[in-house]
Amino acid sequence: MSLLRKTLQSSLSSLKQVRHVLAAPKKLSLDEFDGPSIKTDIPGPRSKELLRELNSLSTTHEVQFFCNYEESKGNYLVDVDGNVFLDIFMQISSLPLGYNHPALLKVLNDPANLSTLVNRPALGNLPPADFPLRVQNSLIAVAPKGLTNVKTMACGSCSNENAYKAIFMWYMTKQRGGAPPSPEELETCMYNKSPGAPDLTLMSFTGAFHGRTLGCLATTHSKAIHKLDIPSLDWPIAPFPQLKYPLEEHEAENRAEERRCLDQVHALFREYTSAGRPVCGVVVEPVQAEGGDNHASPEFFRELRAITKEYGAAFLVDEVQTGVGVTGSWWAHDLWQLDDPPDIVTFAKKMLGGGYFHTEEFRANSGYRIFNTWLGEPSKLAMCEAVVKTVQEENLLENVRQAGSVLLDGLKHLQTKYPTQLENARGLGTFIAIDCKGGDAHRNKILTDLKRKGIQSGGCGERTIRCRPALIFQPHHAEMVVNAMDEVLAEQA
Amino acid sequence: MSLLRKTLQSSLSSLKQVRHVLAAPKKLSLDEFDGPSIKTDIPGPRSKELLRELNSLSTTHEVQFFCNYEESKGNYLVDVDGNVFLDIFMQISSLPLGYNHPALLKVLNDPANLSTLVNRPALGNLPPADFPLRVQNSLIAVAPKGLTNVKTMACGSCSNENAYKAIFMWYMTKQRGGAPPSPEELETCMYNKSPGAPDLTLMSFTGAFHGRTLGCLATTHSKAIHKLDIPSLDWPIAPFPQLKYPLEEHEAENRAEERRCLDQVHALFREYTSAGRPVCGVVVEPVQAEGGDNHASPEFFRELRAITKEYGAAFLVDEVQTGVGVTGSWWAHDLWQLDDPPDIVTFAKKMLGGGYFHTEEFRANSGYRIFNTWLGEPSKLAMCEAVVKTVQEENLLENVRQAGSVLLDGLKHLQTKYPTQLENARGLGTFIAIDCKGGDAHRNKILTDLKRKGIQSGGCGERTIRCRPALIFQPHHAEMVVNAMDEVLAEQA
Repeated sequence: MSLLRKTLQSSLSSLKQVRHVLAAPKKLSLDEFDGPSIKTDIPGPRSKELLRELNSLSTTHEVQFFCNYEESKGNYLVDVDGNVFLDIFMQISSLPLGYNHPALLKVLNDPANLSTLVNRPALGNLPPADFPLRVQNSLIAVAPKGLTNVKTMACGSCSNENAYKAIFMWYMTKQRGGAPPSPEELETCMYNKSPGAPDLTLMSFTGAFHGRTLGCLATTHSKAIHKLDIPSLDWPIAPFPQLKYPLEEHEAENRAEERRCLDQVHALFREYTSAGRPVCGVVVEPVQAEGGDNHASPEFFRELRAITKEYGAAFLVDEVQTGVGVTGSWWAHDLWQLDDPPDIVTFAKKMLGGGYFHTEEFRANSGYRIFNTWLGEPSKLAMCEAVVKTVQEENLLENVRQAGSVLLDGLKHLQTKYPTQLENARGLGTFIAIDCKGGDAHRNKILTDLKRKGIQSGGCGERTIRCRPALIFQPHHAEMVVNAMDEVLAEQA
Repeated sequence: MSLLRKTLQSSLSSLKQVRHVLAAPKKLSLDEFDGPSIKTDIPGPRSKELLRELNSLSTTHEVQFFCNYEESKGNYLVDVDGNVFLDIFMQISSLPLGYNHPALLKVLNDPANLSTLVNRPALGNLPPADFPLRVQNSLIAVAPKGLTNVKTMACGSCSNENAYKAIFMWYMTKQRGGAPPSPEELETCMYNKSPGAPDLTLMSFTGAFHGRTLGCLATTHSKAIHKLDIPSLDWPIAPFPQLKYPLEEHEAENRAEERRCLDQVHALFREYTSAGRPVCGVVVEPVQAEGGDNHASPEFFRELRAITKEYGAAFLVDEVQTGVGVTGSWWAHDLWQLDDPPDIVTFAKKMLGGGYFHTEEFRANSGYRIFNTWLGEPSKLAMCEAVVKTVQEENLLENVRQAGSVLLDGLKHLQTKYPTQLENARGLGTFIAIDCKGGDAHRNKILTDLKRKGIQSGGCGERTIRCRPALIFQPHHAEMVVNAMDEVLAEQA
């Protein structure tokens, strides 16, 4: 039996064990609509009016329509024209429990939480009394195995930016072997010059998305429009495996492709190091999301982790989009069964605030090195705590696995039924995608037609449709999505 | 009469005119404490206990003590040991109306605002129905003259990062003269290479602070500890004027110093441009805050603005700390009376969320170039709207000018009384600072002793004490600060 298959089977059996331990999920009782209902063009007349208003104050290229968040419920998003969408994109994958979940409403209706909203503290200097307990009950309660520390941040980009800084500081602290920085380092850094601002690098992958601020953007390689015209850094970029789906039918080719990429990782470590530009870390997504839902095997990630150890570099797993249960595990990298945990794991989106988990080794060695005014926001932790509790109490990971299985089976059925239109249905949990054979235009047409049928979904990569529903998305919702897509595809055929 | 003096007088007379138009401020009726009250060591026993708890989960180098935000009121911060501080630092200058202001409590008690908190939208894609009106009533209502557009962001660093990107995009769009990007540009940018990721630069000043993410950090030059070990970009860094205070007594020297710095700005534009590394913009704070409360004259800024025009570069004013009324004007750069407004003005902190104002010219020319998942948060706009309304209704700018005048006069008196300890009292509105002659250690001792007397203040630069009270800080609070400082200085003498 191949290593890849062994790995997959071992991941599966570990999932089965989890299933075994957990009770079957309760059928969720959600206060929501029976199904989508579309009354106007999308965007409707009221949305168009608001679009004109907003456009006089701000660019609006990306606005799809305007929403009525008060009326939205569970898996259903309501727009200002009264249209009701089954939402499988959930605000770019950032709402864990759908709309107006009672557990979250309860947090914000609690007068005790009001003062943290009105008096947003400088969390690093003057935390509120309940901050340690909140961190414990929200973030640390779901900390990745082996990562005992956390820093809170406001968004995904800030999380990655600060994680990169933590890696560079860790690397230089090791280099100094306990010695303090030299006067020359302290002087030169003020002018952006070496040795104080050293010529260190961080490795990323083609197709990656880690954010849009300048440090993050140097490691983002998903779409030209994100990067065009912005000065960048010469940091190593390794090829991310381009696997064939279904993975189990292309085992040998996929293994060879992953081998090719890992060889390049080795080569880039050697090339940059010998050029005096040390590679201090590697950043990677468990599934490349914005880049087109590109998967790699647990084996690939295990070997990547081993390579970082070999070269004394940090291993940073960016779980901003893959985290919080969407793959059927809390963190996607749980499925890799690493012997050594990652050094740093970043999060945002469905955690409702950002930050990064890290090992003891990656604690900043003095004050104000990893810092900003707000460092996130305590009210986000209060909401995150409610999310963690709800996922546990309602057994939502099992729900994700069941709904995901129905959705993926349905998409696989559709790609067999419409072989000229669809291919490569793939996914973990409800983190599911499928490719459109007619490229960009074909994909966008399907997304628009789905919207007209009341399914709010999203694209990624060049020709991919991605599903990013909330954790309360259930098998019967998955069936609605598949049926709507069936109709759309039949109309195109 | 010198130009500098003319300028100052003209600024003053414009202020006077404003005063004339506005009614004298009502004496604010605030529900707050009569004065500070300190019962324990700082940090007290409960704070120490919580510090130990938090330190097992996260670094805590910067924690001063833990707070009871429910009990804090107006200008007074209450800690977990029951100590009451008169707070003139206000969460690193980020609370506009002090603690638990009724106008903000009202916003968050309004059930209509609950859904924007629970259902945080991807604002760029799916804004709520009231978003255009909210933007109008909060941000646009106080937009700097000439800047009709705004983009919302989550924090100060993201605001500057995206403003920098907007400048680079604007510059390259001009260069192309309407032509689309070349295939070579679209390909090379994916690998961080020129011409797609061009070698453009942005000028900043010694002593500046614009944030800590990698792009911002390349323009931050206030303290080595912020920059040490982080790779950076070779961008031009001009000297910021080191003026002598009081400004009116050192006119000729200060004018010469500003001339020297402006000559260097010219030289750097020429040097970088001739090296094929165009300087696309200049970023500057109206008063360098973190760098030590360094002032420059309106004349200096007017000439800087003219220089950017001359070289076809953008002029970005970072008002993250100086904005929102603290100088006695809504924006500090209002006092410069520019003929041409800045191209971009960034904000955060007291605006309660981040973003940047800009002219029509700086609108992104296509979708997803300036974008992220959340793009700020609508609930912050609802609060900002209440701040704008409260400042207007309660005439808080005039209050700031009056309280600031009492505080600055008091500090000037103290520096005369303690000439071996203090010098350089300076400020605009309540944005006030004073230097400690004994350097870092002396400054930190005074800050600690002030805390023991119930005054919560902050430091900046190497030896400066900075005052950053809320807009509801009144003359009688200023007197308390001066009296407490008098006692502290007398004990040191």
